[in-house]
Amino acid sequence: MGRWEPNARDRLQRAALELYSENGFDQTTVADIAQRAGLTERTFFRHFADKREVVFWGEDALHELFVSAVADAPDSASPIDAVAAGLEAILSYFEPITRAAARQRQAVIAANTGLQERELSKYSSLAEGIADALCNRGVGALTANLTAMAGVAVFKVAVEGWIDGTDGRDLSQHIRESLGELKALASGG
Amino acid sequence: MGRWEPNARDRLQRAALELYSENGFDQTTVADIAQRAGLTERTFFRHFADKREVVFWGEDALHELFVSAVADAPDSASPIDAVAAGLEAILSYFEPITRAAARQRQAVIAANTGLQERELSKYSSLAEGIADALCNRGVGALTANLTAMAGVAVFKVAVEGWIDGTDGRDLSQHIRESLGELKALASGG
Repeated sequence: MGRWEPNARDRLQRAALELYSENGFDQTTVADIAQRAGLTERTFFRHFADKREVVFWGEDALHELFVSAVADAPDSASPIDAVAAGLEAILSYFEPITRAAARQRQAVIAANTGLQERELSKYSSLAEGIADALCNRGVGALTANLTAMAGVAVFKVAVEGWIDGTDGRDLSQHIRESLGELKALASGG
Repeated sequence: MGRWEPNARDRLQRAALELYSENGFDQTTVADIAQRAGLTERTFFRHFADKREVVFWGEDALHELFVSAVADAPDSASPIDAVAAGLEAILSYFEPITRAAARQRQAVIAANTGLQERELSKYSSLAEGIADALCNRGVGALTANLTAMAGVAVFKVAVEGWIDGTDGRDLSQHIRESLGELKALASGG
């Protein structure tokens, strides 16, 4: 077996999520994952620090895409429009992810308290990153924090709608709907 | 020492937060807390399951106040108005809490990853409770989830503003401002 296997990361991630889904996260070992992927434990640890990282791998890229797009929005964009640009930018991250894979991953997280806490903490960091980017655009702290949290809420609701959806609408449509809903709810008060 | 000490819960909670603040959460033992409060470890465990519960004690009451008020809002209230009623209802929970005590508690949480995760999970449960209450009012799932998360964001931002504030405005003023800001940001897009 060669030192650098083709697509090792993808194979390991797919194997891990299958096993977490079949047997539970806590019950799965790195040895199980390596075996299912036809690779070695050493190869696993060249790609991931631990079992948990497999579930959240790539999230840093998503964070970066979202926050950069907020920062780079035109000066004339309102806070909510800058966040909308961030929501638009992350679509490229989801491009290669099938709905079935996203659904499997979400079910794995939902079944494990530690993974749920980790996910909440990722969302919280994302909101902080967006709020910082808005502050750097000259937006006041209150508005920045609130807009960032509302933007993350739009994102969460849209991803859930996409994963649970049966009508075949894609994520961009769910994001548009969810963003429109945020604007409507606020004006309906 | 009598079996039922007067104000034992308050004394223990105050002693615990002082010690967490002075020495760190991980470095403080239940024995330390009992000693500082002039009570026994047995008394501590009659009031709290563990060290962590001291930090979040009372949060269930807050959750209940918020969610009940959303459920009991007039039928004519829009989703955001029902959430506004919830935000109004929790003010009574904060009535006896001084800003200095709230600030001390927040600093203790900010200094400990486990407590931060616990707090995020409390906020997430609160949002779920509010969303369920809105669904029971006949609000669709997307709007219910989004309004609930936006309401929790308003709450978080208002409490932070109150804790950090130097102008003496009370929590109700911060909540009003934060809610107004939510409405403004959504209409500004």
